[in-house]
Amino acid sequence: MQSVIKPLLQKNKSKILLIVLDGIGGLPINGKTELEHAHIPNLDQVAKISACGLHMPVSYGITPGSGPGHLGLFGYNPLECQIGRGVLEALGLGIELRKTDVSVRCNYATFKDDLIVDRRAGRIPTEQSQKLTEKLQKEIHMIDDVSIIFAPGMEHRCAIILRFPEQLAPDSALISDTDPQKEGLPPLSPTPFSENAKRVSKIAEKLINISQDILKGESKANFLLMRGFSTVPDIPTFQEAFGLKALAIAAYPMYRGLARLIEMEAPPFDGTVEDEVNFLKEKYNEYDFFFLHVKKIDSYGEDGNFEGKAAQIEAFDKLLPEILELNPDVLIITGDHSTPALIKGHSWHPVPILLKSPYVLGRTSNAFSERECLKGELGIFPAMYILPLALANSMRLKKYGA
Amino acid sequence: MQSVIKPLLQKNKSKILLIVLDGIGGLPINGKTELEHAHIPNLDQVAKISACGLHMPVSYGITPGSGPGHLGLFGYNPLECQIGRGVLEALGLGIELRKTDVSVRCNYATFKDDLIVDRRAGRIPTEQSQKLTEKLQKEIHMIDDVSIIFAPGMEHRCAIILRFPEQLAPDSALISDTDPQKEGLPPLSPTPFSENAKRVSKIAEKLINISQDILKGESKANFLLMRGFSTVPDIPTFQEAFGLKALAIAAYPMYRGLARLIEMEAPPFDGTVEDEVNFLKEKYNEYDFFFLHVKKIDSYGEDGNFEGKAAQIEAFDKLLPEILELNPDVLIITGDHSTPALIKGHSWHPVPILLKSPYVLGRTSNAFSERECLKGELGIFPAMYILPLALANSMRLKKYGA
Repeated sequence: MQSVIKPLLQKNKSKILLIVLDGIGGLPINGKTELEHAHIPNLDQVAKISACGLHMPVSYGITPGSGPGHLGLFGYNPLECQIGRGVLEALGLGIELRKTDVSVRCNYATFKDDLIVDRRAGRIPTEQSQKLTEKLQKEIHMIDDVSIIFAPGMEHRCAIILRFPEQLAPDSALISDTDPQKEGLPPLSPTPFSENAKRVSKIAEKLINISQDILKGESKANFLLMRGFSTVPDIPTFQEAFGLKALAIAAYPMYRGLARLIEMEAPPFDGTVEDEVNFLKEKYNEYDFFFLHVKKIDSYGEDGNFEGKAAQIEAFDKLLPEILELNPDVLIITGDHSTPALIKGHSWHPVPILLKSPYVLGRTSNAFSERECLKGELGIFPAMYILPLALANSMRLKKYGA
Repeated sequence: MQSVIKPLLQKNKSKILLIVLDGIGGLPINGKTELEHAHIPNLDQVAKISACGLHMPVSYGITPGSGPGHLGLFGYNPLECQIGRGVLEALGLGIELRKTDVSVRCNYATFKDDLIVDRRAGRIPTEQSQKLTEKLQKEIHMIDDVSIIFAPGMEHRCAIILRFPEQLAPDSALISDTDPQKEGLPPLSPTPFSENAKRVSKIAEKLINISQDILKGESKANFLLMRGFSTVPDIPTFQEAFGLKALAIAAYPMYRGLARLIEMEAPPFDGTVEDEVNFLKEKYNEYDFFFLHVKKIDSYGEDGNFEGKAAQIEAFDKLLPEILELNPDVLIITGDHSTPALIKGHSWHPVPILLKSPYVLGRTSNAFSERECLKGELGIFPAMYILPLALANSMRLKKYGA
């Protein structure tokens, strides 16, 4: 699709605002979904005059993680562009990844008599693992010509970045996990599955040995298990693909990291949704496209807290009039996936979406909810078409064919 | 899709009538779209008992030109079969293209001191450019083994067909435009982008030189700029793909040309929509499939004339009872794309469609309009599936698999 879009792009001064209410889609408890239960007069009003529908983040029945969920919203086919676990872990820890990096998720583990006896090192406290990670970083900076960057995580977790002097071939991180998955087994070797991966696996082996030596005095966290070796996906930047100068506003590092993968600008940010809206206003003249991420709705969904999720939706609804005052040419409000409180986790259900622009039918949906969006003019459609629709509605696409 | 369809085809005596109301889809002005505003009791009545829906000519957000718009309606994937600008220009001028042809759109331009000083030769009057084109044709018939056919166009435009003695490889027309796009620059060379294109570019170069010599006495139109080198797409004929003997009835040459690309019969025709309907009746026993093209609805949409577009829809509505009397087994009424008066041009919006046959649910839509079709049993679906639906509803497709 991007190859069809690219030759059609034309520039103008329009503004596109994509608001991602993380995990917005829900399921009924006592007959009503979270969106139906919440009192959201502003969202309902905008839905009435917008193009509404439901988008499918990946495919029928597929529950997306945050990575594929956002890639779809950003106009990429999440089945073609995959983000490795190591990369996602590093992004979540706020690491700025480069095209020359191999990222790895790591667990501190307990190693005894050549066996892994605890895969999580007794879930050591974050404070303790952080100290160990700092110690490792202090003693290890380079292995051969590769810079080693340690990123402390929660409890027994950390991430390691192997920063090579130049970009590697796409198959260079095809390396097996060293985690034996069961306790009482020896750790596995980082086995390369391609010719290009041999160089990376050798660095990983050396790193395992050096770190084992440094950690040998520890009673619990005396070994590093490595999983999810991955390079950043080699995909066109957002600006290349869609001709848009984009700003990501997100309080959680992982979402900024996802945006940075496609080279959206994503300045460090810490604050409430209100702060996000203020930041949006401040930066409104400087960009064509804005991705504003609202996290907490998802968090309550994950906790199975139906009322809490509804309350977070209501809190966003109260901020909406202020956002509408900016009067963007195209306003899109949706989520990256559904997180029904009933399921206490992400789900495969298509996600309500509204697209407000001067070029819609409107008056097909009476509210912003799963059931009302189903009546809308967008129908049920793959998430990766949201961005072409945004471009069309902002008059940024020329005609295809004569 | 065509490879799935072909082994399932079976013959019978059914008649399929596809009526294309060019640019029919619209957007609301004062709350109502052109279709909602127009008084169209006959279309509304047929919609009530038909399968209704909205088709997507190319893809989400993509505004189709007439070429891809019609290819989709004819059952071809418009993203796979592209029609070059030169081919479309030649079709629009009524040229019968062959598989051995390379078509080129040309502009008369003003050349001075090795530079193009006016890319449109002061938009010379059609009468004057016609004379020049005739003069060129008189003096140039062959270059090497290639026949040269000139087709006069409007104002500064003409088309040139390079008719080779045999069919060329598909990449033979990958040649850059010679139009420098800006005035005050020298004309560009027709640069070949493939080995096979070299032969064609050499003919083009000779043609540029010879014509420059013939035009050298002209004060304005003394140079030919060439754009959109293209061969006719190498796609199966309509009869091969769908087993239907087809007649195209269209008053505008380009639409007959599009039909001829897939070897529908498209006799010269000049007249009103009423004349088209009479011609349809006259030929009704001779074909399986009829493509009847109604142009003027689009023209008023392009002009931004909401009332005029609605009036043209009403005019067609008055003719509908006469068409219904023919009682085709399958009647499809739709457009090749939307042309909202609000946008004054083609748009990306899905297009209302009704399919009348004995084998539909019906009673889902109360009128023929964008919003009512949205409630219909066909949903929102790609245009290229219209033809398989027509074949199925005319009982021309066997079961797939046992």
